[in-house]
Amino acid sequence: MENIVLVEGAGFCFGVKRAIEIAFDVAKKHKEGIFTLGPIIHNPQVVEKLKELGVCPIESVTEEKNIKTLIIRAHGIPKDKLEELKKKGYEIIDATCPFVKKAQSLAEKLCLEGYQVVIIGDSEHPEVKGIFSYAGEKAVVVTSDKIPNLNKKIGIIQQTTQPLSKVKEILNGIINSLNEFEEIRIFNTLCNFTAKRLESTEKVARNVDLMIVIGGKNSANTTQLANLCKKIGVKTYHIEDVKEIDKSWFKDVKKIGITAGASTPQWIIDEIIDKIKCL
Amino acid sequence: MENIVLVEGAGFCFGVKRAIEIAFDVAKKHKEGIFTLGPIIHNPQVVEKLKELGVCPIESVTEEKNIKTLIIRAHGIPKDKLEELKKKGYEIIDATCPFVKKAQSLAEKLCLEGYQVVIIGDSEHPEVKGIFSYAGEKAVVVTSDKIPNLNKKIGIIQQTTQPLSKVKEILNGIINSLNEFEEIRIFNTLCNFTAKRLESTEKVARNVDLMIVIGGKNSANTTQLANLCKKIGVKTYHIEDVKEIDKSWFKDVKKIGITAGASTPQWIIDEIIDKIKCL
Repeated sequence: MENIVLVEGAGFCFGVKRAIEIAFDVAKKHKEGIFTLGPIIHNPQVVEKLKELGVCPIESVTEEKNIKTLIIRAHGIPKDKLEELKKKGYEIIDATCPFVKKAQSLAEKLCLEGYQVVIIGDSEHPEVKGIFSYAGEKAVVVTSDKIPNLNKKIGIIQQTTQPLSKVKEILNGIINSLNEFEEIRIFNTLCNFTAKRLESTEKVARNVDLMIVIGGKNSANTTQLANLCKKIGVKTYHIEDVKEIDKSWFKDVKKIGITAGASTPQWIIDEIIDKIKCL
Repeated sequence: MENIVLVEGAGFCFGVKRAIEIAFDVAKKHKEGIFTLGPIIHNPQVVEKLKELGVCPIESVTEEKNIKTLIIRAHGIPKDKLEELKKKGYEIIDATCPFVKKAQSLAEKLCLEGYQVVIIGDSEHPEVKGIFSYAGEKAVVVTSDKIPNLNKKIGIIQQTTQPLSKVKEILNGIINSLNEFEEIRIFNTLCNFTAKRLESTEKVARNVDLMIVIGGKNSANTTQLANLCKKIGVKTYHIEDVKEIDKSWFKDVKKIGITAGASTPQWIIDEIIDKIKCL
């Protein structure tokens, strides 16, 4: 198998690279008691490598007793949680993605200026939970084109990894009720890297016989890439690891496209490409 | 002819009523030298009545020498023009519609806050020329769904009498390029009265055999009502005066709808209804 097209921008995004670098840096400087609150990124292999260096993920601070340093992962955490951790006296290393930080501070600003904050995204995603905590009591999360009743003055932001097409659809739905609003203020908080990765993936997926989408099964943005490819109609496999590859997938396949989510390290992508080349 | 339906909200809107009341009030108090800059509203009959009271429309201040008081009509005028008139020492009575005033001050505020101001409307309309003068050098008027290249941070307002459907179409076009923007801030500056009149006119037009649309031929909002009726497919006549009515229009017609633009006085509507009833 030689006819392999790797999608431009596949793999680690800026925020993820930054969070991992911060975690590895901290691991080098400290000897014990370093933890990440939740996995640093949605990729089990990276989490495993950090564990080897003594940086373990914990779900909450009550689980562990010997906590000295806490690393906040790229998704960010809710405001009250961050304040609580600071009060407890832990050393806090904030690796929240700058794009997510921007969405958090816009949520806070809009709320202070009297807007009802509308977050377009998945209410169960940790990033959205974090942003929501800055957005005030009246804030709402909108996930589909079913728009709830809103105030007359709204400020709209987005989960950074939402697909542009879905965001546009929801915004168009809101615009359709323009006569019910006094002001609609929209900040674009979408991550460029994610948007470009989706766009390049679509282009490749339309020109190959098979797509391999690499990334954690619990990674929303990887799942989004896989769903996009399936929607286009190309045969698609979402895998986390080289071991999952099955030779039978490639029968009668001439051209293969490869893409990877924002939490997928380059070494995993390389391993998988090498494996396919040898089939 | 008895089966006549008068559209709810047909005729004078709030801003027009207010401007006319101001003009008549001024006419009572002053003896000479009172002028309106342009016709006070787009209706020749009202303009004629004011002339009888000594309040004449002039196109520009150079035309007349004995100016003491100038009434600014409901549409408003450009900022520099207003300042020039004040400097010349005339007594200025500002009858600009409060909805138009709001659009003017939002244009100024947005410009001061660094937004490129986008005005959805007709660039040739005096109201838009007025608003535009407050919107700064980078401002643009968008008339159709052909959206020009815009800055990354835009503030959108509308000519108060634009049809909601057209505004939504243009806004959706802008939203479709969301990825090119950092912020899109939309203020709803549409006049409620105009929107409701269009909506009620549409309802009536769908249920009658003939529509009579009353109002100045140079009134944009009356022409808009006539175009809406024609689009629906109902036989439509746009008239200014009772004298225009032609008996032949009503042959085989069972149900008649009547609507009127924002500058049409009630007495003209009544006269026309009475005439049709007697046919």
